[in-house]
Amino acid sequence: MNHFSKTAIQSWERFYRANFINCLSGFKSATLIGTINKENKTNLAIFSNIVHIGAAPALIGFINRPTDAAPHTIKNIEATGFYSMNHIHSSFIKKAHQTSAKYAEGESEFEKAGLAIEWKENIGVPFVAESRIKYLMELTEIVPIKHNGSFLVIGAIQDVFVDETLIDKDGFLHIEKACSITSLGIDGYYETSLKARYKYAKPGIATEAIK
Amino acid sequence: MNHFSKTAIQSWERFYRANFINCLSGFKSATLIGTINKENKTNLAIFSNIVHIGAAPALIGFINRPTDAAPHTIKNIEATGFYSMNHIHSSFIKKAHQTSAKYAEGESEFEKAGLAIEWKENIGVPFVAESRIKYLMELTEIVPIKHNGSFLVIGAIQDVFVDETLIDKDGFLHIEKACSITSLGIDGYYETSLKARYKYAKPGIATEAIK
Repeated sequence: MNHFSKTAIQSWERFYRANFINCLSGFKSATLIGTINKENKTNLAIFSNIVHIGAAPALIGFINRPTDAAPHTIKNIEATGFYSMNHIHSSFIKKAHQTSAKYAEGESEFEKAGLAIEWKENIGVPFVAESRIKYLMELTEIVPIKHNGSFLVIGAIQDVFVDETLIDKDGFLHIEKACSITSLGIDGYYETSLKARYKYAKPGIATEAIK
Repeated sequence: MNHFSKTAIQSWERFYRANFINCLSGFKSATLIGTINKENKTNLAIFSNIVHIGAAPALIGFINRPTDAAPHTIKNIEATGFYSMNHIHSSFIKKAHQTSAKYAEGESEFEKAGLAIEWKENIGVPFVAESRIKYLMELTEIVPIKHNGSFLVIGAIQDVFVDETLIDKDGFLHIEKACSITSLGIDGYYETSLKARYKYAKPGIATEAIK
């Protein structure tokens, strides 16, 4: 096993270091975020740093890079208060990745990346038609992270669209059956296979798999 | 496709809802966090809501539930300023899951779950010997999330321990070659397989795989 110190890592070439550090924290849940601006132009962008914050109330957060690097999504969310989150499946990874290109404001990544817009009744933000698991979020809070100018954007789950065939009898959602991918680093995309689920752990009781 | 409204989701039985909501945000990077308290008692706990915050400076965050639900890790981190993060591999998922049981303060999950402590020279917190990818973190900031009493704990990467054979020529770290797992929901663990890496996306240029 090799040891890399903070000093050594800081000395690495910028992109080499970015790849390494982005992978180190592990697999992520790359997701497409759909928004609309005040001029009714749609926007779609891939975000991978998503965190579950709580189930009651149902809150999910994501990290938005500093606004000079990633301006459109956060600006649209601030303006309208709503956004869609759309799972990425194996069948359209390449298109999802293309949304990370720096298009000018007002150019829609839906069109540029070749993904179809889906509008839902009474909802003002666009969804990804190809996505089989998607949900509407309402902005709760934007928490600035002072150390590097990024933001934790927290939202509350409003409406979920998903086939009920993916939901297990105890509420577990088998996203792998919809071929939702996981991502690693800046540009790696993975398929998954379920190894095991384990029952709620208690001291002194042997860990047991859920059948 | 079925539609579940916020009101419908709120009406669900507590554990059913927790399973569903925890899965909805996608795959996560379950990681074992090793700490020590002021009385030199070791602690080990599984955390799954990890976020990459930035590469320069190299910052990683994780969500700690409210302190009445998950008191030990965050208290130890506040007391000592340091913690280890250890990847979980397919070979010891069951043991890693067992660390989520509510052991009394001072009972070490290393011993209870059957994972070996590894001490590193000049580092005061314990690592998981079985883990092939692990790193030392120094606390940067604890950000309270007011909506549900949880915390975003942000740390800076200090020392990384990993086989250099896992590192690609451009810095990409192939954690799947060490069988690092990804998690879903509260209790699901998955193996992964690399589908593709894609080059930095640019407007007007076709998305291209990295060979």
